[in-house]
Amino acid sequence: MNQNNISFSRAETCTVMEPIHSNIFGNVHGGELMKLMDIIAGITASKHANGMVVTARVDELEFHKSINIGAVVTCVGQLSYVGNTSLQVMVTVLVHEIERYSEPEVALTAFFTMVHLKDHKPSPVPPLYPTTKEEKELFALGEQKYKEIKAKMSKKS
Amino acid sequence: MNQNNISFSRAETCTVMEPIHSNIFGNVHGGELMKLMDIIAGITASKHANGMVVTARVDELEFHKSINIGAVVTCVGQLSYVGNTSLQVMVTVLVHEIERYSEPEVALTAFFTMVHLKDHKPSPVPPLYPTTKEEKELFALGEQKYKEIKAKMSKKS
Amino acid sequence: MNQNNISFSRAETCTVMEPIHSNIFGNVHGGELMKLMDIIAGITASKHANGMVVTARVDELEFHKSINIGAVVTCVGQLSYVGNTSLQVMVTVLVHEIERYSEPEVALTAFFTMVHLKDHKPSPVPPLYPTTKEEKELFALGEQKYKEIKAKMSKKS
Amino acid sequence: MNQNNISFSRAETCTVMEPIHSNIFGNVHGGELMKLMDIIAGITASKHANGMVVTARVDELEFHKSINIGAVVTCVGQLSYVGNTSLQVMVTVLVHEIERYSEPEVALTAFFTMVHLKDHKPSPVPPLYPTTKEEKELFALGEQKYKEIKAKMSKKS
Amino acid sequence: MNQNNISFSRAETCTVMEPIHSNIFGNVHGGELMKLMDIIAGITASKHANGMVVTARVDELEFHKSINIGAVVTCVGQLSYVGNTSLQVMVTVLVHEIERYSEPEVALTAFFTMVHLKDHKPSPVPPLYPTTKEEKELFALGEQKYKEIKAKMSKKS
Amino acid sequence: MNQNNISFSRAETCTVMEPIHSNIFGNVHGGELMKLMDIIAGITASKHANGMVVTARVDELEFHKSINIGAVVTCVGQLSYVGNTSLQVMVTVLVHEIERYSEPEVALTAFFTMVHLKDHKPSPVPPLYPTTKEEKELFALGEQKYKEIKAKMSKKS
Repeated sequence: MNQNNISFSRAETCTVMEPIHSNIFGNVHGGELMKLMDIIAGITASKHANGMVVTARVDELEFHKSINIGAVVTCVGQLSYVGNTSLQVMVTVLVHEIERYSEPEVALTAFFTMVHLKDHKPSPVPPLYPTTKEEKELFALGEQKYKEIKAKMSKKS
Repeated sequence: MNQNNISFSRAETCTVMEPIHSNIFGNVHGGELMKLMDIIAGITASKHANGMVVTARVDELEFHKSINIGAVVTCVGQLSYVGNTSLQVMVTVLVHEIERYSEPEVALTAFFTMVHLKDHKPSPVPPLYPTTKEEKELFALGEQKYKEIKAKMSKKS
Repeated sequence: MNQNNISFSRAETCTVMEPIHSNIFGNVHGGELMKLMDIIAGITASKHANGMVVTARVDELEFHKSINIGAVVTCVGQLSYVGNTSLQVMVTVLVHEIERYSEPEVALTAFFTMVHLKDHKPSPVPPLYPTTKEEKELFALGEQKYKEIKAKMSKKS
Repeated sequence: MNQNNISFSRAETCTVMEPIHSNIFGNVHGGELMKLMDIIAGITASKHANGMVVTARVDELEFHKSINIGAVVTCVGQLSYVGNTSLQVMVTVLVHEIERYSEPEVALTAFFTMVHLKDHKPSPVPPLYPTTKEEKELFALGEQKYKEIKAKMSKKS
Repeated sequence: MNQNNISFSRAETCTVMEPIHSNIFGNVHGGELMKLMDIIAGITASKHANGMVVTARVDELEFHKSINIGAVVTCVGQLSYVGNTSLQVMVTVLVHEIERYSEPEVALTAFFTMVHLKDHKPSPVPPLYPTTKEEKELFALGEQKYKEIKAKMSKKS
Repeated sequence: MNQNNISFSRAETCTVMEPIHSNIFGNVHGGELMKLMDIIAGITASKHANGMVVTARVDELEFHKSINIGAVVTCVGQLSYVGNTSLQVMVTVLVHEIERYSEPEVALTAFFTMVHLKDHKPSPVPPLYPTTKEEKELFALGEQKYKEIKAKMSKKS
């Protein structure tokens, strides 16, 4: 497999939401889901950069639906764009109810911006090549988000 | 104190970053910090809404600097704007090194959008009145972010 | 996809081994790995049984190599045999070092015997159909293990 | 602010009691509250000593009322006396119900005796100056407790 | 065994102090040890009361020596006195280094006052009979502590 | 006490099953129990080997009955056989309901094979001497299991 493809670095984790993940309303704690997403974003970016990465930003993290304790959750990380030393990962959390053949539903989405570090300094990352039609759409979306975020950061300084 | 003021619902937590919060590089795990921010956003919004709230979105979560294990962290939540049933909370994480009189530095910032729920349905929240100069600036920033986020959501549908 | 196939219920989780998973020697705690395997065995069996399952036995759980903190771990569950009300899941833990393109290595393997429960009583499970050559080999191995375990249990009583 | 004042080292944390803090009766686990108090005592003493501290004793830890899951808890640490190398911290846990404007109630109180360490040995701490009327009362109470504890320890040896 | 004897309700737990129990100095977190002691005090008191108990007070909790990660810890709970509805438990934490035949050393001691509850109200507990010489000494010490604590509580009100 | 006896290295832990140990059905999580057993197996083997040990295998781990949150659990580790550099530990989990004088019931049993390491290499362990009738039976059972496991491992290679 080409190591510069989106599919190469794709990471996926599947787990059960248990009582330790509960918030005070008995659903899954938003903070636990963010932690899970951060881990999968880190694995995805590390695979592509072939090195150590850290989280720099999270944008547009949306909770589309709440998740019940006992649900099976699949968290997927896919690169959507890369800059010079940064990598943008789209993270999606899908939810299934464990005891019936339900189609997975999208529960959360977010864009994580990770930075590749070498000797504690930002370090270049390989280019990213989308191949399938879906990947090309993801890449186009990622590029647009990347520019929006960049613009927002310039305005500040 | 007027319950509609920004200062009324302000929440602040101060804690030590311990080895259980560590990531694989020996710094504080980004996911743990997001979880801390989510908790403080929830307390802030609950105090103003005087009821149950859930996290709907997180925008522009930025890691300004990494945090060491052993650092003292202060996480502050302040309302920056309210919509009809939603509340926007600006969350800031400040970091001090425990063993010297260091000025706290900003380590993370983010905007959390919370929704007030009653009987599992979005429910109106009281208006928000900024009073001091700083609060008025925060409110103006919040209003701008609120519109940006709203616009981004409309474009999708 | 045919819901009686081995591939239908296959479950896979990918995560990073973090400092909270550490044992006193600085490697990953055996108990944490067993817990991870138990969760994935539960997801696999639940998908096939389309209902609630509990762990009845674990056999031949082997630690082939120790795992470092910082490693990426993939835990895979596959049905290897089913009885009347029980399901046998072969669980494999693979390990990759995060910062280089290493081929995954097998770190742990085990056979979990799960029981399908309905109203707190053992309840029948659908038959299992292996399709590919690999699946047929897995099924043959599973059947043999199933008989060995059954024989061991009869000797006792 | 004068670094020798009681108000300088005061530490406060505010958090929500979540299901992971639950005991087997569904209230907050006493052990979790003690852990929270120990952390805040450490922050308070560290700020005054401007260095590393360890817990030497806990006296008169009282549970005035049980705390429900979902309650907001504020834990406050204030220096009440200092010896040559030790620091006495009065820790108070206040509880609010999150969904109504309840006045906070005192749920736990305790006196923590911390020791300032430098190169693993007890090391002198700066003097403590109470300024307000409340602080002078706290200081008088602290001095009395300090002597009681000292007397109890002498009797033993 | 006579259910009113001190030896009947004695509880003991032996565990390894692992990295998750670490404080920021790399020793065992004081708060983790208090939590362990609280659990063992609860088991001890429950066995004697033959019912539900809650922690009411902790007195004279002393850290005699710090504990390293990797040490084996034994935590022992023994009833030292009973009042009408309350039970006093002396809790001792002993520490052994795992890799040599070291004699256990006392690391922490404390007196926990537990209350027996029935239908959420304090409820009488059976009498306590010390039998051996050591138990009689423990009982005498417990009675003295019980009176000291009672006196301290009366002074307040 | 003779350090080569089974009774010398016996380890026992007693704890309460709390909400954090819960699975999605409200019983104790199988993975948490395996982790507890792994810890006690490690303590038992370490005491006999007088050094560092790691888990190599787990065989015939059986769940005899499910355990409720709130139950008191006693986990016992006893050496049942030793090889040249390996130690076999029989681990038993007993369960009591906390609020009545119930006889403990066996909830789980398993055989753990541990290896003694010195400088990261397998290292010889002292011989094991059973003394009482029960210990001799345990030793005979252990020897038989040891041979079964050995045979199973040879067949593979």
